[in-house]
Amino acid sequence: MDSDTVMSRADELAQFSSTPGALTRTYLSNEHKLAHKTLANWMKEAGLTVWQDSAGNQWGRKVSATPSKPTLIIGSHSDTVVNAGKYDGNLGILLGISALQRLQEVELPFHVDVVAFADEEGTRFDTTLIGSSATAGRFNADWLSITDKQGISMAEAMQSFGLDAERAGLDARQPQDVMAYLEVHIEQGPVLEANNKAVGVVTGIAGAKRYQFRVKGIAGHAGTVPLDMRADAMCGMAHMAVAIEDYAKQNQLVATVGKCELPSGSVNVIPGEVLFTLDIRSQDQEKLEASCEELFVLLNKIAKKRGLRFESHLFYEAEAVPCSESLQELWGTSVELTTKQAPMFLPSGAGHDALAMAHLTDVGMLFVRCEKGISHNPREAVIHEDVAVALDCLTKMITLMAEPNHAII
Amino acid sequence: MDSDTVMSRADELAQFSSTPGALTRTYLSNEHKLAHKTLANWMKEAGLTVWQDSAGNQWGRKVSATPSKPTLIIGSHSDTVVNAGKYDGNLGILLGISALQRLQEVELPFHVDVVAFADEEGTRFDTTLIGSSATAGRFNADWLSITDKQGISMAEAMQSFGLDAERAGLDARQPQDVMAYLEVHIEQGPVLEANNKAVGVVTGIAGAKRYQFRVKGIAGHAGTVPLDMRADAMCGMAHMAVAIEDYAKQNQLVATVGKCELPSGSVNVIPGEVLFTLDIRSQDQEKLEASCEELFVLLNKIAKKRGLRFESHLFYEAEAVPCSESLQELWGTSVELTTKQAPMFLPSGAGHDALAMAHLTDVGMLFVRCEKGISHNPREAVIHEDVAVALDCLTKMITLMAEPNHAII
Repeated sequence: MDSDTVMSRADELAQFSSTPGALTRTYLSNEHKLAHKTLANWMKEAGLTVWQDSAGNQWGRKVSATPSKPTLIIGSHSDTVVNAGKYDGNLGILLGISALQRLQEVELPFHVDVVAFADEEGTRFDTTLIGSSATAGRFNADWLSITDKQGISMAEAMQSFGLDAERAGLDARQPQDVMAYLEVHIEQGPVLEANNKAVGVVTGIAGAKRYQFRVKGIAGHAGTVPLDMRADAMCGMAHMAVAIEDYAKQNQLVATVGKCELPSGSVNVIPGEVLFTLDIRSQDQEKLEASCEELFVLLNKIAKKRGLRFESHLFYEAEAVPCSESLQELWGTSVELTTKQAPMFLPSGAGHDALAMAHLTDVGMLFVRCEKGISHNPREAVIHEDVAVALDCLTKMITLMAEPNHAII
Repeated sequence: MDSDTVMSRADELAQFSSTPGALTRTYLSNEHKLAHKTLANWMKEAGLTVWQDSAGNQWGRKVSATPSKPTLIIGSHSDTVVNAGKYDGNLGILLGISALQRLQEVELPFHVDVVAFADEEGTRFDTTLIGSSATAGRFNADWLSITDKQGISMAEAMQSFGLDAERAGLDARQPQDVMAYLEVHIEQGPVLEANNKAVGVVTGIAGAKRYQFRVKGIAGHAGTVPLDMRADAMCGMAHMAVAIEDYAKQNQLVATVGKCELPSGSVNVIPGEVLFTLDIRSQDQEKLEASCEELFVLLNKIAKKRGLRFESHLFYEAEAVPCSESLQELWGTSVELTTKQAPMFLPSGAGHDALAMAHLTDVGMLFVRCEKGISHNPREAVIHEDVAVALDCLTKMITLMAEPNHAII
């Protein structure tokens, strides 16, 4: 079975790591080069024509003898976080290769490209989506001077990888030449598992904002200052964290306080300062903006009431990206034909290469159930049967897109 | 004026520090030895007979020609925290010396000892009240093997200081030989300032318990796990901190969450584990015990409701110590005679040498207002006029105790 191939290739690919016994494969590393060489070989086995682009992305094309339409791109990323799992990103590339291997003898009215995007995680240079941004015409030349922890600049790393940094991003794809972008990815969340579904159609990728907050109060002796005379930064922070959770629940957002630090915390000192972060996301960009405003009114009220100073700094934001409705519908049909069940639709709280590719073309994503939603971790796991379902769905999706009567082309 | 002397001596004493430009004077350090030599000289100037005891405490005695009663001890501590203020501990010793200097020509029916306890803070060996414990017959020989950060044991440090570690604590005072223990100390809290009082009579020293808490939840991706599927350790901790504050307010306790740590906190990860501390105090030991029990029921309920594991570890406790009622009354009289105002009575949330001395004799304390309640900090400040009031009160207190008709002797 070709899903066996996908599973064994995921194991094989996990060997290309800079940390023995664990999987860490960062952008433009030597292990990354070797992983792409292996991917290129598998692409060739599937009958694809292969090349590497200016950002180090590895491409394989199923050439159409009579292309009557723009190119369909299927992809995901080949880089990983530190101490990663085997399926995040890599599974989507391997499914693309295996689907095209299956369709090797089928003539399609468009080229189909499978791509291994060389950077999505941003592990090495602290900027994400480098690979898909280059493809989508959004490579930023300023990135070339960013250095990694060893002081190596992205430009230098590109030269070592065999790339010409001066040409990075110049071979971006043109919108009129691209039909759509499809990505299959593990869910990295628990929703499919809780709903007993092998796969799910993604409705869109949530927009996100990340804030650094600082609450300033007045430090004091834990024994000598009565509670009504305190300006306790920690109690203020706790009050705010509870308010954030309540607000998010009431407004169907996801919000997370992921870091909390007391710079001079001591068991017997009333905290004078607390730093904490907020990560807040919604599918609906307008709602996200409005909610942040409302939430800030709440947090400032809490600070004022408690005699605390509250400062916030927005240090990251990504706009919400809806998936193409016609692609969602077509994924739905392919899931229904494959599983004989009504498809499940769900949002993506995590970012993906589709975020960057949405600047170039319509995007459509399929999620695969993963165990307990665990990701970015060696315990990341998928069920073999789910991978087989995903492969069937992707293959069906490509052939559906080739049918003359469907809406999106 | 002799309160000028107290103020200038506090400045002079602050020069004996192991950190130039800041005040840090730890138990048995060379600077500590020099500070005690200076204190001994001032004691001699006041006509006192001086000696050093087995734990390094510096004593000075106003000898009575016709002692008809046990000895009155007046004291506080000469060691400091790291980067300390000038008045914590030291002020009480200097006031004792100056009060006896004033009374140099007055014949009293008891000896009066002024003592500089050599360790109260526990900065060097992580165990507090070493000096007063030795005096009160509670020196623990196990302490001798505790090492400081440089790996020097307390026994070794004692030898360098010129002490015989084997005799440490053997010269403890006997209850029948001691009349009472008086301590004047800065409040280290904001209550006197808020009430516009120079000094206040202490009703007792609060009992305290310190806990290390651990909340365990399930880590997860901040974008992909819906709120109702989370076991977020940080939200649980915040909920608990708010509950602790509410409980303490309702029950007239002081409670402080002074440390909070997320061992693998990251802006985009749902916290799987949070560690935090609780310091909780009450004047009333029974109430403290009952409150901790009630509070733990509350905290466990929160954990259970949220699917979190809650673990607690009590790592420190000190029993509440009431000040002697007759000494409180006498301090009240001396404050009233001195200030022509009704005395203010207030509890001490902080621990003091009186905690250890209460095992030996009745204790009575007087607090001096300090600016904004700031302590354990170079910004620690007292008003010169308040020091003059405190010196008058202490002198009056000693003479009141010498009157044949008062209750406590």
